[in-house]
Amino acid sequence: MVIGLTTMLEKSEALFASDHASVVSMNLFVALLCACIVLGHLLEETRWMNESITALIIGSCTGIVILLISGGKSSRILVFSEDLFFIYLLPPIIFNAGFQVKKKQFFRNFMTIMLFGAVGTLISFVIISLGAKHFFEKMNIGDLTISDYLAIGAIFSATDSVCTLQVLNQDETPLLYSLVFGEGVVNDATSVVLFNAIQRFDLTHINSAIALEFAGNFFYLFILSTALGVAAGLLSAFVIKKLYIGRHSTDREVALMMLLAYLSYMLAELFHLSSILTVFFCGIVMSHYTWHNVTDKSKVTTKHTFAALSFLAEIFIFLYVGMDALDIEKWNVVRSSPGQSIGVSSILLGLILVGRAAFVFPLSFLSNLTKSSLDEKIDWKKQVTIWPDIRIRTIWWAGLMRGAVSMALAYNQFTTSGHTKVLGNAIMITSTITVVLFSTVVFGLLTKPLVKHLQPSSKRSSTTALQITTGSSFHDPLLTNNEPLLSTQGPSEYNIEQPVSFRMFWNSPSRAIHHYWRKFDNAVMRRIFGGRGVSPVVPGSPIDTSVRQWSEEVENKEQNGEP
Amino acid sequence: MVIGLTTMLEKSEALFASDHASVVSMNLFVALLCACIVLGHLLEETRWMNESITALIIGSCTGIVILLISGGKSSRILVFSEDLFFIYLLPPIIFNAGFQVKKKQFFRNFMTIMLFGAVGTLISFVIISLGAKHFFEKMNIGDLTISDYLAIGAIFSATDSVCTLQVLNQDETPLLYSLVFGEGVVNDATSVVLFNAIQRFDLTHINSAIALEFAGNFFYLFILSTALGVAAGLLSAFVIKKLYIGRHSTDREVALMMLLAYLSYMLAELFHLSSILTVFFCGIVMSHYTWHNVTDKSKVTTKHTFAALSFLAEIFIFLYVGMDALDIEKWNVVRSSPGQSIGVSSILLGLILVGRAAFVFPLSFLSNLTKSSLDEKIDWKKQVTIWPDIRIRTIWWAGLMRGAVSMALAYNQFTTSGHTKVLGNAIMITSTITVVLFSTVVFGLLTKPLVKHLQPSSKRSSTTALQITTGSSFHDPLLTNNEPLLSTQGPSEYNIEQPVSFRMFWNSPSRAIHHYWRKFDNAVMRRIFGGRGVSPVVPGSPIDTSVRQWSEEVENKEQNGEP
Repeated sequence: MVIGLTTMLEKSEALFASDHASVVSMNLFVALLCACIVLGHLLEETRWMNESITALIIGSCTGIVILLISGGKSSRILVFSEDLFFIYLLPPIIFNAGFQVKKKQFFRNFMTIMLFGAVGTLISFVIISLGAKHFFEKMNIGDLTISDYLAIGAIFSATDSVCTLQVLNQDETPLLYSLVFGEGVVNDATSVVLFNAIQRFDLTHINSAIALEFAGNFFYLFILSTALGVAAGLLSAFVIKKLYIGRHSTDREVALMMLLAYLSYMLAELFHLSSILTVFFCGIVMSHYTWHNVTDKSKVTTKHTFAALSFLAEIFIFLYVGMDALDIEKWNVVRSSPGQSIGVSSILLGLILVGRAAFVFPLSFLSNLTKSSLDEKIDWKKQVTIWPDIRIRTIWWAGLMRGAVSMALAYNQFTTSGHTKVLGNAIMITSTITVVLFSTVVFGLLTKPLVKHLQPSSKRSSTTALQITTGSSFHDPLLTNNEPLLSTQGPSEYNIEQPVSFRMFWNSPSRAIHHYWRKFDNAVMRRIFGGRGVSPVVPGSPIDTSVRQWSEEVENKEQNGEP
Repeated sequence: MVIGLTTMLEKSEALFASDHASVVSMNLFVALLCACIVLGHLLEETRWMNESITALIIGSCTGIVILLISGGKSSRILVFSEDLFFIYLLPPIIFNAGFQVKKKQFFRNFMTIMLFGAVGTLISFVIISLGAKHFFEKMNIGDLTISDYLAIGAIFSATDSVCTLQVLNQDETPLLYSLVFGEGVVNDATSVVLFNAIQRFDLTHINSAIALEFAGNFFYLFILSTALGVAAGLLSAFVIKKLYIGRHSTDREVALMMLLAYLSYMLAELFHLSSILTVFFCGIVMSHYTWHNVTDKSKVTTKHTFAALSFLAEIFIFLYVGMDALDIEKWNVVRSSPGQSIGVSSILLGLILVGRAAFVFPLSFLSNLTKSSLDEKIDWKKQVTIWPDIRIRTIWWAGLMRGAVSMALAYNQFTTSGHTKVLGNAIMITSTITVVLFSTVVFGLLTKPLVKHLQPSSKRSSTTALQITTGSSFHDPLLTNNEPLLSTQGPSEYNIEQPVSFRMFWNSPSRAIHHYWRKFDNAVMRRIFGGRGVSPVVPGSPIDTSVRQWSEEVENKEQNGEP
């Protein structure tokens, strides 16, 4: 450990040497971040744009300018550092997503999210790996091994959570957001398992034992990562409640929450767990318990600070990706074969489209089988006769983007600390960049209008007009709770206080989990960890319901950012 | 520039290589930060302790534990990186200090602060340099050159602003805080000039031309640094007001303020200005204009976020200094001569005490000469007969601490990227560590009770009992405005609307500057840059006064953290 500390700090010494040139580049980078914010703000009214695309474009333009200034010679502008990305930029983004996520919406659809995130990603992984092997072997693009093909599958099967956050709006399309973003978080666990599996198992000969070990590995990783995040969140709630940290200083509460969240992420890294899952659940628990124990000022501060830091990290990533795209070293290697490069990119994009379609449509079908009420099934049967419902197509479409996570994984697999001279590897890197830029810009640009199109035309002009009635034409076959696809959470969703039997677990497991969780949460957890404060009234009585409804409403409003 | 970018990023690549060991050390460090917060909170009731001392002790203990685990062999635990300190940790601390400083208190005492920060630091520098040369040459501690002695003077003449922030409380002792902390900020400019002077001029033969150039250099640096900070602050106010950034997103405002503040710091670094002065004035302008243009949520968020980040950076620094103190490499070099090391540390501590006394007492006398009203002078003459007033002694005492800034400068002068094998240099480093630890712990521990002792005994028990009457026994000879030393700002201080003549500039320049600044600020600046909002009533009319008093009161309350 001591040697490790030494290594890290001798490295940090090397980095922090304040030569004039690095100060220049830091100035440039900070100024560009400011420009991204201001331009993103000015372009916000535009239907097509979002901040990530603005940052990508500004980053690329800066790359071109620096390339021209250096006369095309010195072109290594920014090296994409996967560790800068994974250690400093990703944690605030994912933590904030957990902190701000609508918990009810997320847990209601938990089963569907798990199905998409685990099984779906696996299907996509198999299709992309097989497709890549099939096509790329014919194209003669260098010496890619079987593990390279499997890595390609793992890299491109994962939906990028950061891109999803940029394009989808939680308040406008809560269900779509929770499904696609939740899937993005869960498939990080899948990716970690896949990467481990690629390195440990001989996946060319899959048998039932290996498949079982794989599944066990996944559940082990998922449960441990989640438990670590939940434990860190509960610890923060307990400490802040018991020691009354906010007594003297609001700032201490905020600092402690930040530190514990980051600690959970780093501990997950330490134990080779899925750190994204950990910090996501830490965010959920902190917003459910810790947030209700802190002072009012801390509530406002944490909510907006985490959002602002996440926002900064997001535009940092996109600016970074935009600048790195222009790295001429890799492009020089593939210059001799432009056709191959374009071909590989196109094939990858096609495989992503097919791979996602191959699990979204069947799994949506499967998800509907768990529904309990008969009329919903009939409703769904009506729809199976036509081309898949537009909302399912939207789920398919909204998860197509590949972003910085894909780039980081590709650099990990195909370069040695950011450099490569091998043709096959260079083609894979340039193709990844192409796929990321294309999917983020083109798919991203088209997602906003597509989502807008989903909203009923009569209310399209109003900004808050997102709650639609559960008419048959808008009935969503994906939902287990007969909720409309596009709805904000109203008090009506708390009228599910009917008796729950174990049969319910079979018929609608998500609903049963949610029900028992609420009971347990009210009875035990909130007494220990604070939470929203347990009301002294008898559970189930009218006053209890109304108090709870009111407090839930207040919380929803707060979560939505309303005054 | 492109080469610079390359260098920086190749370095960052090296740093961010996520080997397992560096993940372990990051976990350890984050966990220790959490422990510091919790322990600091628990020890808060203690009269003697503060967070910096807690962090120092925890850091040292961890160092000892790691030293024992490694069996005393591998002892290089943490390398003190002056660039990590100056580029990442210091900016949020100083910016927050500017952001939260009581502006009126600061500008009222501006002349005294300048006198202390510029002339005082120079006097202290001369005394410490001469004293070090005199004593160390006799002690035969290796080959220290004349520039080393001058560097020692520059290193130890500067009051550490970070330590001051930890020990003094702005709300309890606003005047003492503004004087000592303000001095700490201004003497950064002096330090930069001194360092440049040491490298450029032959200071062994000082003549009037060199002294004049030195003074010109100082004012050039001071004015340019201040102007840059003010410009960055005004730019943020203008952009946020004109573009109405908060329309859609509070987070964007917060992010933009952070980025512009950091940009001002980095620009000052780029142009070799005093970046501490720049970011301090940027903070002042942002709290005066920008803060009043943002949404209410952003107001709460920025106030507490900046404070929390500054708090984190502070405990990070002290933990870091505590861990670095145990670096056995340097101690091994000086092990052969323990007497010399102790001697050097004691002499340095003595020189710091004498050097500070040599300017605090005469300059306090000088500061009183600028007073206009006759009875104040008589009041002061009463007191000159006795041993200097206890409050002047407190000013002397509270500025004795040396902290991370001194360590960073010492490492810069006496090591090559954190390592040294030369005896003289090693002794200087270990002595610096000893001086920093001793002054922070001992002087720091004694400052709190000393300041408490200043408060009138009848009110010592009450936490808010800080406003004392201006009785003759509590009259402060330092003040130009006849204010009590320990007072919170009440509305009474706005009753200075009597006609102001140019004679006032001669008699009480601070007051005149304050007066004209208020006129200008109201008339021009607030129309362009927002500020607290210009009331449409006639200036000087009763309603104007009352509205302004009310808004100032509200602002003061907000600045004090009251609800």
